[in-house]
Amino acid sequence: MRHFLAALKIIQTNKQVLNDMSFLFNDNIRKMTGYTPGFQPDSARAIKLNTNENPYPPAPGVFEALKSISASEFRKYPPSTWKDFRRVAADLHGLDPQQIVCGNGGDELLTMIVRCCCDTHRPLAYPTPTYSLYPELAHIQNCPIIEVPWGPGMSIPDSLANSGATLTIICNPNAPTGTIISPDEIGDFAASYSGVLLIDEAYVDFAEENCLGLLKRYENIAILRSFSKGYSLAGMRFGYIMTSHLIASALMKVKDSYNVNIATQKAAVAALLDQDYFLDNVARIKNERQRITLALRNLGFEITDSHTNFILAKIEEPEAKYIHDQLAERDIYIRYFNLDGLRDKLRISVGTPAENDELLNGMVEILGK
Amino acid sequence: MRHFLAALKIIQTNKQVLNDMSFLFNDNIRKMTGYTPGFQPDSARAIKLNTNENPYPPAPGVFEALKSISASEFRKYPPSTWKDFRRVAADLHGLDPQQIVCGNGGDELLTMIVRCCCDTHRPLAYPTPTYSLYPELAHIQNCPIIEVPWGPGMSIPDSLANSGATLTIICNPNAPTGTIISPDEIGDFAASYSGVLLIDEAYVDFAEENCLGLLKRYENIAILRSFSKGYSLAGMRFGYIMTSHLIASALMKVKDSYNVNIATQKAAVAALLDQDYFLDNVARIKNERQRITLALRNLGFEITDSHTNFILAKIEEPEAKYIHDQLAERDIYIRYFNLDGLRDKLRISVGTPAENDELLNGMVEILGK
Repeated sequence: MRHFLAALKIIQTNKQVLNDMSFLFNDNIRKMTGYTPGFQPDSARAIKLNTNENPYPPAPGVFEALKSISASEFRKYPPSTWKDFRRVAADLHGLDPQQIVCGNGGDELLTMIVRCCCDTHRPLAYPTPTYSLYPELAHIQNCPIIEVPWGPGMSIPDSLANSGATLTIICNPNAPTGTIISPDEIGDFAASYSGVLLIDEAYVDFAEENCLGLLKRYENIAILRSFSKGYSLAGMRFGYIMTSHLIASALMKVKDSYNVNIATQKAAVAALLDQDYFLDNVARIKNERQRITLALRNLGFEITDSHTNFILAKIEEPEAKYIHDQLAERDIYIRYFNLDGLRDKLRISVGTPAENDELLNGMVEILGK
Repeated sequence: MRHFLAALKIIQTNKQVLNDMSFLFNDNIRKMTGYTPGFQPDSARAIKLNTNENPYPPAPGVFEALKSISASEFRKYPPSTWKDFRRVAADLHGLDPQQIVCGNGGDELLTMIVRCCCDTHRPLAYPTPTYSLYPELAHIQNCPIIEVPWGPGMSIPDSLANSGATLTIICNPNAPTGTIISPDEIGDFAASYSGVLLIDEAYVDFAEENCLGLLKRYENIAILRSFSKGYSLAGMRFGYIMTSHLIASALMKVKDSYNVNIATQKAAVAALLDQDYFLDNVARIKNERQRITLALRNLGFEITDSHTNFILAKIEEPEAKYIHDQLAERDIYIRYFNLDGLRDKLRISVGTPAENDELLNGMVEILGK
């Protein structure tokens, strides 16, 4: 009995301590709420145009790659430096394999570069509005955040180069605006900036130009690519960074030893090797993007030309939130952001022609046109 | 021409800055060298007993699970809160699904908990020798490290509870010693410790007891499990933490939104559901562990009974490093650690009976017995 009471006392003391969360977890973790991913409806019939997934299947080789995994590949650790993918990607892009660093989705690579470059005294900067994960990564790393609104005509803001940030992220093409900055303008920025510049090219597959050529000129640039959009592999989680040997070597220090599993490595190689399939797929999405942009403009939406696989459509009346909710009742999901500068806009992923028809029909009904 | 010269000047300035790495990357990142994963030989004929992989294939259901991935599952983001796995694991362990947090391998979960609990003023503690990744994670997080040698008979060291660390990791069973601390002793420690205690049970599938029962009594405990050892899925990267709702909610804040891909989620569910296959497999490995322990003792090695899928074998003469190198020449790979307290020891993963025979034959040759 004495033993029992003593134990009870200890447990109570222990519980007391735990109610004071400030002791158990770092202050920055305690204060933050965490990132909210886009809604994933359960219904198979849902028309899902809310998280910028590709509406088409991945390349046929991906299915074969996953079927080919051997018992030995399952039970052994996967290649820790992504040997096959690095070789194939280096060939495609004209780089040295060591300039390529792979991640468990682009999000992991964003985490890695923030961990290399930012801390309590070293800020992260980015133009706003942009990908809403960036501030969350800064909260987790407990680094200061410098948000600078985009300049006139969605240009790089003047003050960004001298913000004092040790890492600047430019999402290009940008989400959720769909706009793009030219490689020349980004190059000028890199030249005048003394920190690390990450160009988040998650959506670049749907644009007419990219910043790859800048790698030859600037050592402080890292370019992030994703397989979640152009390559239809959001489910497999894969992204890669192309950068200088200097930045790559820092990223290699913070990565998990085996951060990309064998199935994803094989899927990514198969997808990258089938450039014909990829380019056809991208062309189809760009055609549909053009079609729904025109159709929605005819319905009264204001839309800047998009360089991504989504469009941002502005409307005064009825309210964007109302349209979003009305579409959801029809099992059609698009994205509404309850954020400054975005409350009169809707972000709509480009779907298949049939899905886009459903969207447009829904809009006609809701707008009473 | 003026424009060209101006640009050249800027590039030079830029290169100059980059040579001063202390500016580009955080000090802690600049100073660290990074974790070195175990050697992965290319040869298919190699006998690989150096990284504690399971010598047997994963459950048949895993192969089926990977073949069943649909186009829609590939192209959409995977379940962000691992719905199916959480349900199956919660049933198996008698927990609430929200007490389970999944990761891209156990290593990612270690990263997550270090990011929740440690910073420049909040130390990480662990008894040594142990898993050599722990100090690397502390370097990346830039937190102080408190290393305390194991107590007499590989017990929890007395000073560990009052070390001042906000996170303590006890690897149990421990690598690379193969020893185990009883749940009672761990419970006593948890009661007297006011920080978060992570019990790294990566190897517990091969032990006779585990710490799961402690979750009912202590809110400051988190238990880490891996699918890389008992479930033969090192290639797929999967682990999970079982903990209090309080600690789980903190981990959910720092996780990547979609940290486990769809193929791994499906593989993990299939593997966990086939407990018969798993238990048979574990029993075979434990039998072989017993056999090679006795055989190596007969050859002159000193070996403490192991509770894992490897053994740590001590030898005075010839040197452990020499034996390691001689085996490698025979395409047999085991692990040698050039670390204090380990230089007279070899860590040998338990292989198939045929692999273990090759190992023992090699040892007989090298030792001239």
